[in-house]
Amino acid sequence: MSMKKQYVVIGLGRFGTSVAKTLVDQGADVLVIDSSEEKVDQAINFATHAVQADATDEQALKSLGIRNFDVACVCLGEIQSSIMAALICKEQGIDLVLVKAQSEVHAKVLYKMGVDKVVFPERDMGIRVAHNLISSNILDFIELSDDYGIAEIEALPVWVGKTLIDLDFRKKYGVNIIAIKGPENAINVSPLPGDVIADGDVLVVIGEEESISRLEQRGEKQR
Amino acid sequence: MSMKKQYVVIGLGRFGTSVAKTLVDQGADVLVIDSSEEKVDQAINFATHAVQADATDEQALKSLGIRNFDVACVCLGEIQSSIMAALICKEQGIDLVLVKAQSEVHAKVLYKMGVDKVVFPERDMGIRVAHNLISSNILDFIELSDDYGIAEIEALPVWVGKTLIDLDFRKKYGVNIIAIKGPENAINVSPLPGDVIADGDVLVVIGEEESISRLEQRGEKQR
Ligand SMILES: Nc1ncnc2c1ncn2[C@@H]1O[C@H](COP(=O)(O)OP(=O)(O)OP(=O)(O)O)[C@@H](O)[C@H]1O
Ligand SMILES: Nc1ncnc2c1ncn2[C@@H]1O[C@H](COP(=O)(O)OP(=O)(O)OP(=O)(O)O)[C@@H](O)[C@H]1O
Ligand SMILES: [Ca+2]
Ligand SMILES: [Ca+2]
Ligand SMILES: [Ca+2]
Ligand SMILES: [Ca+2]
Repeated sequence: MSMKKQYVVIGLGRFGTSVAKTLVDQGADVLVIDSSEEKVDQAINFATHAVQADATDEQALKSLGIRNFDVACVCLGEIQSSIMAALICKEQGIDLVLVKAQSEVHAKVLYKMGVDKVVFPERDMGIRVAHNLISSNILDFIELSDDYGIAEIEALPVWVGKTLIDLDFRKKYGVNIIAIKGPENAINVSPLPGDVIADGDVLVVIGEEESISRLEQRGEKQR
Repeated sequence: MSMKKQYVVIGLGRFGTSVAKTLVDQGADVLVIDSSEEKVDQAINFATHAVQADATDEQALKSLGIRNFDVACVCLGEIQSSIMAALICKEQGIDLVLVKAQSEVHAKVLYKMGVDKVVFPERDMGIRVAHNLISSNILDFIELSDDYGIAEIEALPVWVGKTLIDLDFRKKYGVNIIAIKGPENAINVSPLPGDVIADGDVLVVIGEEESISRLEQRGEKQR
């Protein structure tokens, strides 16, 4: 028998389709399941196997041998169907079950049922996009936890020529500089106190969301 | 007149709601528009202004003074509505129009019309999630440049009880530990050499993709 991990992706919305395609691109074996014949027909082009079935129907999933899979991704839009499909996957003994959730309440129920990972694609990308829109100098923002994040920030003109110790971001803004991106993909991942900020540098900082926001607002004022 | 940037978010699905909430959290003025009364009623709790309107109706948007806004985010699920709403926003002269797209074809049409930024929340998060699923101890990976990234890695049993100086990740794997996530959202963003790894900790590391991969493979062997 193959030692290759077996993946099943349930629900071929935009998220499920992207998960399935990327897994296949990485060389994985992927069974996709959707109740829509049209979705299944399209999926035949990229998935290892594509089956039309109702993922809330225990018998249907059982007869597909769902218990032999190592990882299941439940990517359904409706909360009730998502909960039912996830429950069947866990009950059948799938080791890692990941579910796309709609809300905190949905996530709570899923975790209570033993689901291993819950993701919020729209919410997380919404947070990221909004941070990028707010200030012209925040290039990217990633949440690490509810309160902490990592942001990429364009160096302000007033920072140029100064050292990290001069600027003392830790004390002034409560953030740590974890990397400095220079021109042409150059990146310094061990910034030292004496390192000097150059024009066009991008600082990668870690800290509380609030502290990062303060830095963002400071950026806006300087413009 | 206020110098504060004025934002309008059209469509309160999960993505639009997250964008609007995050903008408000950052102190922005945000008008939200949705055709559903229920969505608008919910939005009154967080948005600066919430209005029920059909965003494909030019007169409706005009009478809301849409041309006075600096940034519009079009977050509708249907391609046709999304295209129409985006067109009205551009024609009314909004400086920055960002649109959530469903497919490459949709994006192409939007760019042709002069839309400034197109995002694919479900697709992008699907790619990220699939990468994270492929290896068992990497929980998340973010590209910083072509060669460097930040990863969240579950602590291996052999690391537990050791200090960062004992483990010397810098020397052994060429990565720096920038944060340690403990239980229940606790996060240490200034790890010190004497800090001890606990069971269940997640290490946030920065380094070359290759170095991170080596750490991943080391994780696989330890299991
Ligand atoms: N009971 C079910 N069994 C199998 N597939 C289902 C079931 N219910 C819905 N689906 C499929 O799940 C997919 C995703 O559903 P839907 O589009 O409602 O979710 P969504 O959250 O809007 O998706 P996305 O945001 O990823 O595009 C659809 O292709 C649909 O046909
Ligand atoms: N013509 C319209 N004018 C205003 N709002 C609209 C219009 N059509 C749809 N909407 C609203 O847009 C919102 C998003 O639509 P929908 O849920 O179909 O998109 P979606 O892509 O599945 O969303 P998400 O993935 O972000 O949850 C809904 O709240 C809906 O009421
Ligand atoms: Ca939808
Ligand atoms: Ca969606
Ligand atoms: Ca947050
Ligand atoms: Ca790369």
